Amino acid sequence: MKNEKLQAGQQSVSFAQGVHILSSGTVVGEKEGQGPLGNLFDLVSNDPAFGEDNWEKAESTMQKEAIQMALGKAKMNPAQIRYLFGGDLLGQLIATSFGVEDLNLPLFGLYGACSTCGESLSLGAMAVSAGYADYVLAVTSSHFGSAEKQFRFPLAYGNQRPLSATWTVTGAGAFVLGTKGGHARITGVTTGKIVDFGVKDSMNMGACMAPAACDTIYQNLMDFNRQPQDYDRIITGDLGSVGQTILIDLLKEKGFDISRVHMDCGIEIYDEATQDTHAGGSGCGCSAVTLGAKILPELEKGALKRVLFVPTGALLSPVSFNEGQSVPGIAHGVVIEHC
Amino acid sequence: MKNEKLQAGQQSVSFAQGVHILSSGTVVGEKEGQGPLGNLFDLVSNDPAFGEDNWEKAESTMQKEAIQMALGKAKMNPAQIRYLFGGDLLGQLIATSFGVEDLNLPLFGLYGACSTCGESLSLGAMAVSAGYADYVLAVTSSHFGSAEKQFRFPLAYGNQRPLSATWTVTGAGAFVLGTKGGHARITGVTTGKIVDFGVKDSMNMGACMAPAACDTIYQNLMDFNRQPQDYDRIITGDLGSVGQTILIDLLKEKGFDISRVHMDCGIEIYDEATQDTHAGGSGCGCSAVTLGAKILPELEKGALKRVLFVPTGALLSPVSFNEGQSVPGIAHGVVIEHC
Repeated sequence: MKNEKLQAGQQSVSFAQGVHILSSGTVVGEKEGQGPLGNLFDLVSNDPAFGEDNWEKAESTMQKEAIQMALGKAKMNPAQIRYLFGGDLLGQLIATSFGVEDLNLPLFGLYGACSTCGESLSLGAMAVSAGYADYVLAVTSSHFGSAEKQFRFPLAYGNQRPLSATWTVTGAGAFVLGTKGGHARITGVTTGKIVDFGVKDSMNMGACMAPAACDTIYQNLMDFNRQPQDYDRIITGDLGSVGQTILIDLLKEKGFDISRVHMDCGIEIYDEATQDTHAGGSGCGCSAVTLGAKILPELEKGALKRVLFVPTGALLSPVSFNEGQSVPGIAHGVVIEHC
Repeated sequence: MKNEKLQAGQQSVSFAQGVHILSSGTVVGEKEGQGPLGNLFDLVSNDPAFGEDNWEKAESTMQKEAIQMALGKAKMNPAQIRYLFGGDLLGQLIATSFGVEDLNLPLFGLYGACSTCGESLSLGAMAVSAGYADYVLAVTSSHFGSAEKQFRFPLAYGNQRPLSATWTVTGAGAFVLGTKGGHARITGVTTGKIVDFGVKDSMNMGACMAPAACDTIYQNLMDFNRQPQDYDRIITGDLGSVGQTILIDLLKEKGFDISRVHMDCGIEIYDEATQDTHAGGSGCGCSAVTLGAKILPELEKGALKRVLFVPTGALLSPVSFNEGQSVPGIAHGVVIEHC
């Protein structure tokens, strides 16, 4: 599926040797620690400020700690890393800039809203597979406090959330990618297009992003000539329960039933019965920490053989929303296999 | 300088075959049209809103038109493009999202502040050289109105600007990169690190970014074992006159005198004597349109044989600035040669 075989409309690249995921680091907040995946994360902080004096610095600190954790597990130091691919949800990526600056690494700043984990893994894998780097870091984060302040209301306003709303995950996930090591590898990527169905409800992100997830998953199945059952799991980032229903319906219309293999990180990370998060979790950190804490270990031990990981993003800003623009979606697919 | 030869600390990649710049499209506003480069741009609009009803949509429209122009000159249609690498200065990249969504192309959203043109050309060239794509688009933009609203004050406030301030360029530049065609090619890239000297003055971006430009230029000269005179021009993005002085001084301290080959897009684009922009132009669009309109044609006809193009970015947001954080810089180097 590399260049010479690509045809018009195809959006995927396959990596003959695969790009190995050597390690991950996952750092989350208290609420995520109390959820179903709580005991799987590397670090749970009961201080939502992570020792800092504002939400943005808290998010930067999470990124630092996730990277430290990932490097430590891979027994590496920053000087062995060639590039860092990173991003977050905040305007001008300040969580990332201030989170990674001390590492002193060549940086590619990325923005794909909550799909950024998929974008960073895709570009990181492309760089490693092409021989531009032996090792790269991919890091993404979100923080409930900084995201609510950025996109919605001050927390103290205490506004009511509709049932279609998702809860921004406080979490950062970092991954070391390289040419060898570990027991999971990225074997292909499907890069997403912007898909805009004209939905304008920023309190229903699932509906905004489901069409993009559908587009990327469909394109991945076509490009690689696979059926849904060729994946042990097709894992979206943060569609939540409302978006999941829409995605499954949309793909059925295109002739694929993914209902038996679909999983959504936003649904996995909280317990709706006890945690009152409504439609589920969201944010760049949601898919990143769920991949690092739950999915990757299962791939490493072979309980999962092959998954399609599809972080999903909603491309709005407070300005575009207030100006009456729609909320387009994008989703980046990453094929990860046991090895 | 590819993988096997890279050593610790090196930040560059060279492309054996080079990655060709097939065409460019440049769209600017009235003030840029009245400047020294005015008759070189593809399109000058006397309507700052570009027919839209707000600054953000105006910026999106500029991106669309720059892309149309670049595709037209290359005699290509969007379906022949494999990936789009794009970004802008606005929170959550809304100028890009709404600017490129109709193209229906796989998108990598990038943020490197005003260095984004360098980041997009770097990643685009890496993708083409690796064989992931035959053709990619790289697009970046900025708009005076949307940037002032984003970063400083409402325009109607009419605040006074210090002499160290730069003027955000209203402009969008798009480039088609590919394996063949045209008479200029990218032969290497040097990816920048975040450099933070602790400067906190958002009205003196030149001082914030000059250390990062110094770092990237120095690293490029070391990695490629070159002297400043091995380049016909070393071209920074938007340091302006204040930043230029600092850059030249900093590089002298490291043993390199670039004063005879240095050029800054921010200084080129306006006439300080008549246009009252103070230290010069800035913004993602500044380096992009100066490359497309002035530098690239000179490379194509061989008047310039080899340049180092180094867009420079200041990694601040209104939130980080108001929280008292410093303004770190980043700069991405791209080596472009006549062919």
